[in-house]
Amino acid sequence: MKKIDIIITAGGSGLRMGSDLPKQFLLLNGVPILCRTIEFFASLPIKSDIYVAIPPLSIDLWHRLCWEYGMDVPCKVVSGGITRFHSVRNVLEHIGSGGVVAVHDGVRPVLDREMVKRCLELATVHPAVVPVLEVRESMRKMEGAKSVAVDRLEYRLVQTPQVFDAGVLIDAYKQSYLPQFTDDASVVERAGVPLFLTKGDVRNIKITTPEDLALAELLVPPSVRSAVFDPDLPLNGLVKGD
Amino acid sequence: MKKIDIIITAGGSGLRMGSDLPKQFLLLNGVPILCRTIEFFASLPIKSDIYVAIPPLSIDLWHRLCWEYGMDVPCKVVSGGITRFHSVRNVLEHIGSGGVVAVHDGVRPVLDREMVKRCLELATVHPAVVPVLEVRESMRKMEGAKSVAVDRLEYRLVQTPQVFDAGVLIDAYKQSYLPQFTDDASVVERAGVPLFLTKGDVRNIKITTPEDLALAELLVPPSVRSAVFDPDLPLNGLVKGD
Repeated sequence: MKKIDIIITAGGSGLRMGSDLPKQFLLLNGVPILCRTIEFFASLPIKSDIYVAIPPLSIDLWHRLCWEYGMDVPCKVVSGGITRFHSVRNVLEHIGSGGVVAVHDGVRPVLDREMVKRCLELATVHPAVVPVLEVRESMRKMEGAKSVAVDRLEYRLVQTPQVFDAGVLIDAYKQSYLPQFTDDASVVERAGVPLFLTKGDVRNIKITTPEDLALAELLVPPSVRSAVFDPDLPLNGLVKGD
Repeated sequence: MKKIDIIITAGGSGLRMGSDLPKQFLLLNGVPILCRTIEFFASLPIKSDIYVAIPPLSIDLWHRLCWEYGMDVPCKVVSGGITRFHSVRNVLEHIGSGGVVAVHDGVRPVLDREMVKRCLELATVHPAVVPVLEVRESMRKMEGAKSVAVDRLEYRLVQTPQVFDAGVLIDAYKQSYLPQFTDDASVVERAGVPLFLTKGDVRNIKITTPEDLALAELLVPPSVRSAVFDPDLPLNGLVKGD
């Protein structure tokens, strides 16, 4: 039975949303996106610490939003860094080895319990678990202004939560930053750790544009609080919450 | 003002849906998926002929579904071939050059009028118009049992409707079949025609799994008939319907 730490990254600037408010704070059916994401993890029948990495300039705003929207989930706010890599590294300073760490994008609030449960369980036997989706569409690769067809069957779209052995993740984050570190899997892989890919969920969208937000609004109930909590769903091999 | 022909491909076997019924015939909020797709195009304020390519063994079933679900859109049923390529080629035998041809997956019933309008309009000035989406997620490329990270910014996900100058499409389909012809863009490109990429729509999902169907059910109204028709929306440069 391993300790579970959850790291939620919320460092985006929101530029692509055409909004002054960073996108993790926009309302999704009346509740800030980041609140919904955090509340999902808090609702799982596991004992875990939840860390959220927030840009220093947004921390006051975040506390105000928590108060305004009645967010009463205990989570530890950590200052985000200049990239996602630096944010995760900042949080890892607070986490010890021995357990598992799930790292999740704050702007992915639409989560399936079964998928997350599977990722957490797999991480008790694999050092790095990554949910991925097959590509349903034909794909093209841009080469300057032109593009060439590529075989979609060879590609996977990478989601979060990515779940790691804590010691493995901490060690991997001792590397120097590289621009190709777009997610934790790429950091861990660079450190020589094999990735275990598992099936993600098509609804687990990353909200980066107004169209994504509109889609997500169709996928979540008006309030997530009472809708996702099922204390009877066991998480095999993991600490069960009180 | 150019003539518009719409080709809707409905040749899938439905194996991935875990269903005996080919997926284009499954019900989406009470209406067969393929009916919804056809009705969308019929609802556009344009004058067009709609062709639907259906596997020979499914044609009787299709006529029965049309009767059961009150599908009264006039569309021309053409026998599908052994691949999508052969299905489109069969339909093109019925179409003359001079206009534009939009080819659309029958299992993409969730369409945005503005996006389709833009593709049709662009095809009056470009020989091949392809709606694409940027990739929001990190990507990996499988190499046997392993995978490597690739740069998502270099890739695009390809959607339909893809819209072509009719003569260009007809000529391109005189080529012999190649397995890499997964969509019409790949056929036309192989014939040396440049593709014009335009922004697709994130809701325009291809229904290939039960999860996709569940997602699509959230995106469409119970009946599409009264919801999408707006006769006042002009389509610049195209024939306006009566």
